[in-house]
Amino acid sequence: MKIECLKENLSKGLNIISKITPIRASLPILSNVLLKTEKGRLKLSGTNLEIGINYFLGAKIEKEGAITVPVKILNEYINSLPENKINLTVDKLQLLIESKNYQTKIFGMDPQEFPLIPEIKEDWLAEIEPKQLLESINQVSFATTIDESRPILSGVYFNFNQNKLTMVGTDSYRLSEKIINLSKKFKKDFSIIVPSKTINEIFYIISEFNEPIKVALSENQVLFKIKDIEVVSKLIEGEFPNYQQIIPDSYETRVKINTEEFIQLVKMANIFAREGIGNIKLEIKNKGEITISVSTASLGEHISHFKAEVEGLDTEINFNTKYLLDALNSLRSEEFYLELNGKLNPGLIKPVGKKGYLHIIMPLRA
Amino acid sequence: MKIECLKENLSKGLNIISKITPIRASLPILSNVLLKTEKGRLKLSGTNLEIGINYFLGAKIEKEGAITVPVKILNEYINSLPENKINLTVDKLQLLIESKNYQTKIFGMDPQEFPLIPEIKEDWLAEIEPKQLLESINQVSFATTIDESRPILSGVYFNFNQNKLTMVGTDSYRLSEKIINLSKKFKKDFSIIVPSKTINEIFYIISEFNEPIKVALSENQVLFKIKDIEVVSKLIEGEFPNYQQIIPDSYETRVKINTEEFIQLVKMANIFAREGIGNIKLEIKNKGEITISVSTASLGEHISHFKAEVEGLDTEINFNTKYLLDALNSLRSEEFYLELNGKLNPGLIKPVGKKGYLHIIMPLRA
Repeated sequence: MKIECLKENLSKGLNIISKITPIRASLPILSNVLLKTEKGRLKLSGTNLEIGINYFLGAKIEKEGAITVPVKILNEYINSLPENKINLTVDKLQLLIESKNYQTKIFGMDPQEFPLIPEIKEDWLAEIEPKQLLESINQVSFATTIDESRPILSGVYFNFNQNKLTMVGTDSYRLSEKIINLSKKFKKDFSIIVPSKTINEIFYIISEFNEPIKVALSENQVLFKIKDIEVVSKLIEGEFPNYQQIIPDSYETRVKINTEEFIQLVKMANIFAREGIGNIKLEIKNKGEITISVSTASLGEHISHFKAEVEGLDTEINFNTKYLLDALNSLRSEEFYLELNGKLNPGLIKPVGKKGYLHIIMPLRA
Repeated sequence: MKIECLKENLSKGLNIISKITPIRASLPILSNVLLKTEKGRLKLSGTNLEIGINYFLGAKIEKEGAITVPVKILNEYINSLPENKINLTVDKLQLLIESKNYQTKIFGMDPQEFPLIPEIKEDWLAEIEPKQLLESINQVSFATTIDESRPILSGVYFNFNQNKLTMVGTDSYRLSEKIINLSKKFKKDFSIIVPSKTINEIFYIISEFNEPIKVALSENQVLFKIKDIEVVSKLIEGEFPNYQQIIPDSYETRVKINTEEFIQLVKMANIFAREGIGNIKLEIKNKGEITISVSTASLGEHISHFKAEVEGLDTEINFNTKYLLDALNSLRSEEFYLELNGKLNPGLIKPVGKKGYLHIIMPLRA
């Protein structure tokens, strides 16, 4: 291989690849990036065996070829170069990077040994705007579990139906549902469960782009493609729980709350809560007086009061503060409704004046 | 105790105290701050048994008293309060913080059990401008060791002589010396060795102020006072090594180098060096051609070239890159001289056009 390319493009690709590449992999070659000339361009590939990324960039190709080298080192080294034009040459299993003022040699590994990233036919089933997808992923992926013993709950559920895309994340103590309507109908209806980790990588990658993300499927893999980047991820197999039945369709108490103000109060209470078992008590009484209280044996106690618009019955309920803060931070609205059905049933949180998003949290027993 | 004070002042003090307070102390009370009314003000005290800090702030005192509470929690809690006026009340061993909208109780510990911070007579021996001290500390303290088996080398040596203050830090592989001339003569000549850790805390604290720092001594403690803050530190006992004899007074080779450009080149080389034993080779030849090279068995090799003004003999020398980067970052000058006496003798680095600072590094054998 002998090519010339621009530092800027090479850096961007190496940055993305290095986000998914394990630093100390059981299989050492997984810490490497594969550089390969392909159809007149340079292809960078990285994989952690769950997610694979291909990144294509323009290059002047003098001689075809391939090599794999440690991605973190190459990325840092390329970033440190003063010139914008970079010459890469492969000599046996060494990558040479040279200019007038420096000569560098990085030892590589055989590209033949690099794990294949599955190829998926570019039969596009759906197209999504990255900004909309980004916000939606943010609103649901935090509610999934990292507990690997329940693989289905470690993924985000996507349901593509006509032109309605529903996304759900749950760890069984809380659930986020986001529905977006797209202008273009999907080529066919389908449902998949994508590992939450992949989703967050995609979130990172798409945050820069302004073109639609295209989605294609194989039997157990999904391909997301945006511009010159392909992200291929394993799918989680199994049936997603029938979550619709736990979404309450009525309430005994409904409170309309200012989001920012409430976040501040919950954060104050959390300074105490996190030293104990992590929960706070909300009391709603006298048609609008609300009390947040927390008490821990080791540290002390804290009570705060505020007023809000309340419909329905007086009540009280205990929530985990971390879960509550996660939910509040996912709202993206000035005000929200908290809908309750007594102290033992799940609470529902949804933005005031915005459709398509809801979050459910299970209460804790006092 | 019953007082009212301003959040801003209380926060500033708690912030400073929490910098030295151990989070998990063998003696739990060391994680606490002592709040005590004293001469019409509120005194905050914290200590890690090596350094103690007293911070005084204005307060309306309704009732005298004292308590100790966990400083990290109190600091975070005070910072989260929306109001600027804060009411603190001590009720037995509880600190109450109250307003219309919240009531908070933090469990404390007996102030009688709080370790005493030694009192030192305010017989000021020297006064130093904080900015000058700050820069000087930065230039020498990084060269001290954290190895506790050689306590003298874990401290910064201060020599106050007439109106010349000399500061030295060394870990025996490198040495930094900084001399500053002060306008005011010291009350008497003296030398002390102050733990490097204290010095860095003082550095942090003084970075905000514009008044002189005053210095007083007791037998084995030093007091630094600036505005309403007292920092009391243990001194390190023993004789500081006679370091003057290792400062070379001539050179066989002298190179004048652009600091920023050289830092970039050493950083590039360091990407390779740190994967190996951490050293790079400098070769100086043909009256001004300089080569930096590094080679590691696992990763590869890197060579870079640049030109500089050279006086004297061609030579080569190996340095540890971390030490070299530390030294370069301490220079604060556009250009520097590197003075060498062959590959086995220490190299001397000093800024071009600025007096009072020098750094010595021992070479490594290839």
